[in-house]
Amino acid sequence: MEEGINGILLAPTPDAWVEAAAARWRELLNDHAQCEKKAASTALALMFTYPEDRRLGTALSRLAREELRHFEQVQKLMAALEVPFERQRPGRYASGLRAALRTADPGRKLDLLLTGALIEARSCERFRLLAPRLPAEVGGFYAQLAHSEARHYEQYLDLAQKTAAPKWRERLRVLAGHEARLATAPDGQLRFHSGPPAHLPDPVQ
Amino acid sequence: MEEGINGILLAPTPDAWVEAAAARWRELLNDHAQCEKKAASTALALMFTYPEDRRLGTALSRLAREELRHFEQVQKLMAALEVPFERQRPGRYASGLRAALRTADPGRKLDLLLTGALIEARSCERFRLLAPRLPAEVGGFYAQLAHSEARHYEQYLDLAQKTAAPKWRERLRVLAGHEARLATAPDGQLRFHSGPPAHLPDPVQ
Repeated sequence: MEEGINGILLAPTPDAWVEAAAARWRELLNDHAQCEKKAASTALALMFTYPEDRRLGTALSRLAREELRHFEQVQKLMAALEVPFERQRPGRYASGLRAALRTADPGRKLDLLLTGALIEARSCERFRLLAPRLPAEVGGFYAQLAHSEARHYEQYLDLAQKTAAPKWRERLRVLAGHEARLATAPDGQLRFHSGPPAHLPDPVQ
Repeated sequence: MEEGINGILLAPTPDAWVEAAAARWRELLNDHAQCEKKAASTALALMFTYPEDRRLGTALSRLAREELRHFEQVQKLMAALEVPFERQRPGRYASGLRAALRTADPGRKLDLLLTGALIEARSCERFRLLAPRLPAEVGGFYAQLAHSEARHYEQYLDLAQKTAAPKWRERLRVLAGHEARLATAPDGQLRFHSGPPAHLPDPVQ
């Protein structure tokens, strides 16, 4: 992990997640496609909530376009590899992070941006961990995505700092604590942002 | 209007709207920026609702990226022209169209796609009407946007036809009737998709 991402994530992804995801990467592509769409819609939601912030609007519009391009790439890969579409229950990660957000501004804007940074940082970490373990065509793609996510992490963090919220570092640590628990505690579902597999079999796989 | 758009819209935009919009184009840029964002989020909502439809996912992801690029261009233009941000109440057009949609599938998917085609067709018509009446830098931009919207209209109509819904033409005529009324009946608010000004002054301008 590069310095920045290393600094923001409070716990590394457990080996057990990497093992499971490397073995089941084909079925994880379904969740990956969903994540790219969600990343775009999260950016858009922020643009709608803070229309007066033009700097945020422009930065997140560009970011959303990039996530959508990734979505198209994942879909193309799934078609090429004949990975069938599968409707999956959402994992606990996004809803778990959402539960930690403050509900009113000014705190909410900072929390949304910091959470955006954390998600991008975790994505970057996991793409890097998986890239060398997957077949070349997928691994190469994941290595590229890791670069984009590192950039997105920096953009979210930059926007968070520009809100000029006092004590943003403290708030980041609190949210990063929630994120680290969600990403490392045993999880009944295998997802791109899930924890490592719990002993129980995953009922929806 | 070209043949396709001429065929889908059941009533042309009234001259009174064109007069008002050409006179107040600067303040309409706020609504225009909002429309580009909404066009992107409408496409994304369809992608989330029908994740199993890969053709739809790819087509609408590309369309959303283009709308977001337009949003960035409008924001840049507003900054260059020093048009201030202004929070506006939403107009009646989107909610009026939504009210006419069937609530359950398979009908809903067809309705959403046909409505998408209608909105793009109306946007195209209005960009063409405004382009020659605005200062060159804005008029040239609007002429370009008219081309994109014509393409988007065709893409939505193509996706609608591919749902293989029987009687899609009849349904299009029904929805186009609603659209035409919303776009031509006197309206208390001036918006990009509003009707022509009612005699009452617009309370939020």
